[in-house]
Amino acid sequence: MTVRIDGRAPAQLRPVRITPGILDFAEGSCIVEFGRTRVLCAASVEERQPGFLRNTSSGWVTAEYSMLPRATHTRSQREVERGRPGGRTQEIQRLIGRSLRGVVNLELLGPRTITVDCDVLQADGGTRTASVTGGFVALQLAVARLAKAGTASESVIQSQVAAVSVGLVKGVAMLDLCYEEDSTAEVDFNIVMTGEDDFVEVQGTAEGKPFSRAGMDRLIDMGRDGIVALFAHQRAAVAAVQA
Amino acid sequence: MTVRIDGRAPAQLRPVRITPGILDFAEGSCIVEFGRTRVLCAASVEERQPGFLRNTSSGWVTAEYSMLPRATHTRSQREVERGRPGGRTQEIQRLIGRSLRGVVNLELLGPRTITVDCDVLQADGGTRTASVTGGFVALQLAVARLAKAGTASESVIQSQVAAVSVGLVKGVAMLDLCYEEDSTAEVDFNIVMTGEDDFVEVQGTAEGKPFSRAGMDRLIDMGRDGIVALFAHQRAAVAAVQA
Amino acid sequence: MTVRIDGRAPAQLRPVRITPGILDFAEGSCIVEFGRTRVLCAASVEERQPGFLRNTSSGWVTAEYSMLPRATHTRSQREVERGRPGGRTQEIQRLIGRSLRGVVNLELLGPRTITVDCDVLQADGGTRTASVTGGFVALQLAVARLAKAGTASESVIQSQVAAVSVGLVKGVAMLDLCYEEDSTAEVDFNIVMTGEDDFVEVQGTAEGKPFSRAGMDRLIDMGRDGIVALFAHQRAAVAAVQA
Amino acid sequence: MTVRIDGRAPAQLRPVRITPGILDFAEGSCIVEFGRTRVLCAASVEERQPGFLRNTSSGWVTAEYSMLPRATHTRSQREVERGRPGGRTQEIQRLIGRSLRGVVNLELLGPRTITVDCDVLQADGGTRTASVTGGFVALQLAVARLAKAGTASESVIQSQVAAVSVGLVKGVAMLDLCYEEDSTAEVDFNIVMTGEDDFVEVQGTAEGKPFSRAGMDRLIDMGRDGIVALFAHQRAAVAAVQA
Amino acid sequence: MTVRIDGRAPAQLRPVRITPGILDFAEGSCIVEFGRTRVLCAASVEERQPGFLRNTSSGWVTAEYSMLPRATHTRSQREVERGRPGGRTQEIQRLIGRSLRGVVNLELLGPRTITVDCDVLQADGGTRTASVTGGFVALQLAVARLAKAGTASESVIQSQVAAVSVGLVKGVAMLDLCYEEDSTAEVDFNIVMTGEDDFVEVQGTAEGKPFSRAGMDRLIDMGRDGIVALFAHQRAAVAAVQA
Amino acid sequence: MTVRIDGRAPAQLRPVRITPGILDFAEGSCIVEFGRTRVLCAASVEERQPGFLRNTSSGWVTAEYSMLPRATHTRSQREVERGRPGGRTQEIQRLIGRSLRGVVNLELLGPRTITVDCDVLQADGGTRTASVTGGFVALQLAVARLAKAGTASESVIQSQVAAVSVGLVKGVAMLDLCYEEDSTAEVDFNIVMTGEDDFVEVQGTAEGKPFSRAGMDRLIDMGRDGIVALFAHQRAAVAAVQA
Repeated sequence: MTVRIDGRAPAQLRPVRITPGILDFAEGSCIVEFGRTRVLCAASVEERQPGFLRNTSSGWVTAEYSMLPRATHTRSQREVERGRPGGRTQEIQRLIGRSLRGVVNLELLGPRTITVDCDVLQADGGTRTASVTGGFVALQLAVARLAKAGTASESVIQSQVAAVSVGLVKGVAMLDLCYEEDSTAEVDFNIVMTGEDDFVEVQGTAEGKPFSRAGMDRLIDMGRDGIVALFAHQRAAVAAVQA
Repeated sequence: MTVRIDGRAPAQLRPVRITPGILDFAEGSCIVEFGRTRVLCAASVEERQPGFLRNTSSGWVTAEYSMLPRATHTRSQREVERGRPGGRTQEIQRLIGRSLRGVVNLELLGPRTITVDCDVLQADGGTRTASVTGGFVALQLAVARLAKAGTASESVIQSQVAAVSVGLVKGVAMLDLCYEEDSTAEVDFNIVMTGEDDFVEVQGTAEGKPFSRAGMDRLIDMGRDGIVALFAHQRAAVAAVQA
Repeated sequence: MTVRIDGRAPAQLRPVRITPGILDFAEGSCIVEFGRTRVLCAASVEERQPGFLRNTSSGWVTAEYSMLPRATHTRSQREVERGRPGGRTQEIQRLIGRSLRGVVNLELLGPRTITVDCDVLQADGGTRTASVTGGFVALQLAVARLAKAGTASESVIQSQVAAVSVGLVKGVAMLDLCYEEDSTAEVDFNIVMTGEDDFVEVQGTAEGKPFSRAGMDRLIDMGRDGIVALFAHQRAAVAAVQA
Repeated sequence: MTVRIDGRAPAQLRPVRITPGILDFAEGSCIVEFGRTRVLCAASVEERQPGFLRNTSSGWVTAEYSMLPRATHTRSQREVERGRPGGRTQEIQRLIGRSLRGVVNLELLGPRTITVDCDVLQADGGTRTASVTGGFVALQLAVARLAKAGTASESVIQSQVAAVSVGLVKGVAMLDLCYEEDSTAEVDFNIVMTGEDDFVEVQGTAEGKPFSRAGMDRLIDMGRDGIVALFAHQRAAVAAVQA
Repeated sequence: MTVRIDGRAPAQLRPVRITPGILDFAEGSCIVEFGRTRVLCAASVEERQPGFLRNTSSGWVTAEYSMLPRATHTRSQREVERGRPGGRTQEIQRLIGRSLRGVVNLELLGPRTITVDCDVLQADGGTRTASVTGGFVALQLAVARLAKAGTASESVIQSQVAAVSVGLVKGVAMLDLCYEEDSTAEVDFNIVMTGEDDFVEVQGTAEGKPFSRAGMDRLIDMGRDGIVALFAHQRAAVAAVQA
Repeated sequence: MTVRIDGRAPAQLRPVRITPGILDFAEGSCIVEFGRTRVLCAASVEERQPGFLRNTSSGWVTAEYSMLPRATHTRSQREVERGRPGGRTQEIQRLIGRSLRGVVNLELLGPRTITVDCDVLQADGGTRTASVTGGFVALQLAVARLAKAGTASESVIQSQVAAVSVGLVKGVAMLDLCYEEDSTAEVDFNIVMTGEDDFVEVQGTAEGKPFSRAGMDRLIDMGRDGIVALFAHQRAAVAAVQA
């Protein structure tokens, strides 16, 4: 059987760790680690609607994503120095926001905004899937606090949501790619699923060589199994706080 | 059977028209129409490599995408007035670029850059899939001109590439959504395939409600059939020029 | 007699074509062609006043101008990539706006804004004069639609307005310069006139060598004759739509 | 006869004062005053060509224009706070640059750049014409210094250049409009001429009501007389320094 | 005793000149000169509060600082061309604002804003200390005008405020450094004091070599003496206007 | 004796914790905590000089500073969304850079650049002084790694450097202000000292009420004692890594 550069089996996740409640001021927070990838997720509740929801009774959930300059193997320039978030950053924060909204009842949330900030402290591949996975934990903790204070219902959260990457590396399907694998993958999928076994996002890209229908099916199956494992980590982290 | 707001059957494309050679100065160009959606595609050849390819013998293909302010039902502000391309614009132009590169042999292209500009003259849904489909025609015409001049091989282009949207609208799977359908769809897929029946991109998003594995499979099948029809339109357009 | 690079006589316009009603959503639109120069003009009516007219009963007409990246012989960078419209762009859109307002009764227009977008699809000299000439047609069609709907009077438009360039090329006065002539002209005038034989703008610039009073007078006479011919094209285009 | 709001006759300039050599570090400088309008002009010589002249033996003259925030009756925001020079600023600095280049032999200047900064300390109408008039004095002083040092010829400057505004205010032709006149003028011309009685720029705009050919001719005559008077002020200022 | 490059004694100010009332439109203004350093200070009164004081009865005093491009020995690029004020500019304008607010009773000022613009016409070191010193004169003249009009009390101004630089140059403590001294100083202090012999700001920086407690004490004593002399210049300038 | 809101004595630091080696890729790193203030410091070594040192043999040390959006009690907008770092950010990063350079021998460092990124994970007052204190540890660890690799000498670092805030709160001198104290302080000092008992920076500001010479002296004494305590924490952190 193929052994990966870090010794994992093809269908194996990296060590996952979710440390909840890491910040004193944020309504919900955690640090999520997928191997050496480490993301600080903070959920902030604000009692205001975004402009486009004015005159509705609905709330909103949005996300922002950023990478610290020395998250990466060599230092990258801060985006603020270039005057605007890059295309990749915007693509990722839109993905995280859509994923989280996929399991939130915005009507029940009521006229408030929850912003989930995902700041990558260290990046070794999979920062967007770690952000969705950890961002959900921060979000759930923030909603739990609202529920405890009696200002929102626990059922604002309708299901869990988590994400993982899968890809073809030298023709082998692999789960949860690290940076070195990701940068040589022929095909790269990011898959976001809910606790109901449904999909919120499926984004597959042929980096080098187009992929067949059968290849896609195999990758999606592998991703689904990984996400089921991530759900357990999320539940444990939330339970730890609420204990 | 479901009849759509414009009278089409669920699995039917809108009228497709590709008018090649529309510009006098561009190396390759066309106007592509999917119903009322109309995109001007222009391929520009420049005898220089992007910085990150320096010291290689490879070329590059990239794309830019923009919407004229009155492409839409009501006027939108120009992005230049806000000082930067929006997140949606960047996401789309990255998708078009990756799709075109999926069928190009960059080594054979040699140390030059082809930029494919996709400017939406009128927008009624599906502007990104029309851009990929028309952008390929502009690209192929530009390469044909290089080949005629003896400075590049026709085999720079390894296959056709085209794209289409599919979605679930009120629970019904539909092909090639117009704006009104797109804005009420529960699920929205953009599918990019090559002439070899392989995939370059699959991007599926649950706008409202997560989707099942079976639902996804049905949408991908429907998209594949639409793309096969688009390939015929592309071949006819290129043949018309070369006749 | 001097023969020009494209075979025209010095006082001859290039072939002019105005195709009205080119867009489905805009309140008024046309494509105007002066030879190979081709501009898409779209008039958008919005039921709001600009800030500086608040508390008045007056409306406003404004224009925006942009060039597609491959309008030109070689590709130009999009202005959005540089973060702001260039000086030339702003100069031109201010000229178009002033020219159109020169024939509009803003009080009669009432508290609304008409924005005329002039997007250059292909540029071969004279893009600003073609924009004024085509922009007027788009504007008139938009006002005609308002009049038909009974929400504005036809007399909002008080006269026609059109524009042409004239210049001294190697000492010879020439009408409607194409790009190659324009780039070698010693003197370059843009003239904007109304159907009442009056001037809205006269902008003359010595590119190489200052010009005499007599030379200026000759150029203005030649421009006036060209504009009279453009008025006939405008009338025909508007009549075609209304037939 | 019409008496103007400041007691002048229609064809009379405001008091003109040009104070040369006002700065210690600039190669040439002056403060020019047209009534209460006051502009600090500084010419800077740099021994480098702009990029577009590389591989030629030609030099370049360019201008920048800005208004201090409290130059005006009420304070205006600095353009740097909005992140870019406005359209009006760019239009004016392009006009000043073209006007100065109209009397400079760029070949004789050699491979260097002279930048003329025109910073408006106080604005009461006519800031662009004062800038051209004072900018020429700063430029000439800078060239004189080069000539004295033996590194350029005095004949780099081929003639004088000066500018004035003229306009129709309540139907009366007036020279050198102050702010209050300018803001109510129906027609506004800026005229730039050389010492050879030739024109470098003629820019006429109908602010309210289009103007006739005869009206234009009267305004140009009046402007020409004003410019002749400005030439004498320029010569006196330069002579004062060189005495 | 050490003689400085411009012949001064170590504890001697450069020639100071404050010319009040230099602008016709600003509520208060002056030009302040410390040797060849020359700053135009203009105080503008606006009858509006900044957003963060809404629902209070307090006013605000703020400052902006900028350098003309040819204030310096060689020309510098305008900050507007880079799209934003630099870090140094922002640091200085925050210092000037805090210094002026240190002697203003914002409650007595009432719900208005005074903006003090400090534009450096020529820079030879000490532009920030000259700006504080001249900015105070402009501010006091503006308040005097409000007091004369009966809309504010003279006691809005609670004391004088002035500033000076001191530094260690080749081991010698020196007052009011000119540019050449400043650029070789090992230690550089900016000191801002009120007429009550108290400090508003003390900013000391080791440019090359850290400084001892005793060295700091000597520099602060020297600065205090310089500021006392500046107070006399301020009083004379204000008296001249009010005579 | 005064008891502070968190129970500390006036001259007492908050609990200090420095956790070194927190990042896998950075050449040197730590998390520094002053009470609830928490800053991630990362030192990156790049083998290139900044432009202004070209043609010298000297290296450079610089710093960047940023605050995560939910570091604060309520969420703040990211600076990248406003298109530029704010004035406060720039002021702080310049301070950190100067402080670190105060103890580095740039000649010995050789032609390389060390960038110290200070990213505030949580902010409760004193983020800039914590950044200097932790930034030094990151820097020293990076230099130690260079020394170990034999590419630089340990004596690049000439002394320790640390910083602390002191202030007058309701008339009482206090060390190391937390956010709540800082926001009501009348006087606020940031003091940066070296292990040689010398000063690199002294920045004192009267927020409300100017301060006397005697008051300043008391604050500086208190700050000095706090810094001596911080030096011990730095030494322990570095020793822990090297053990």
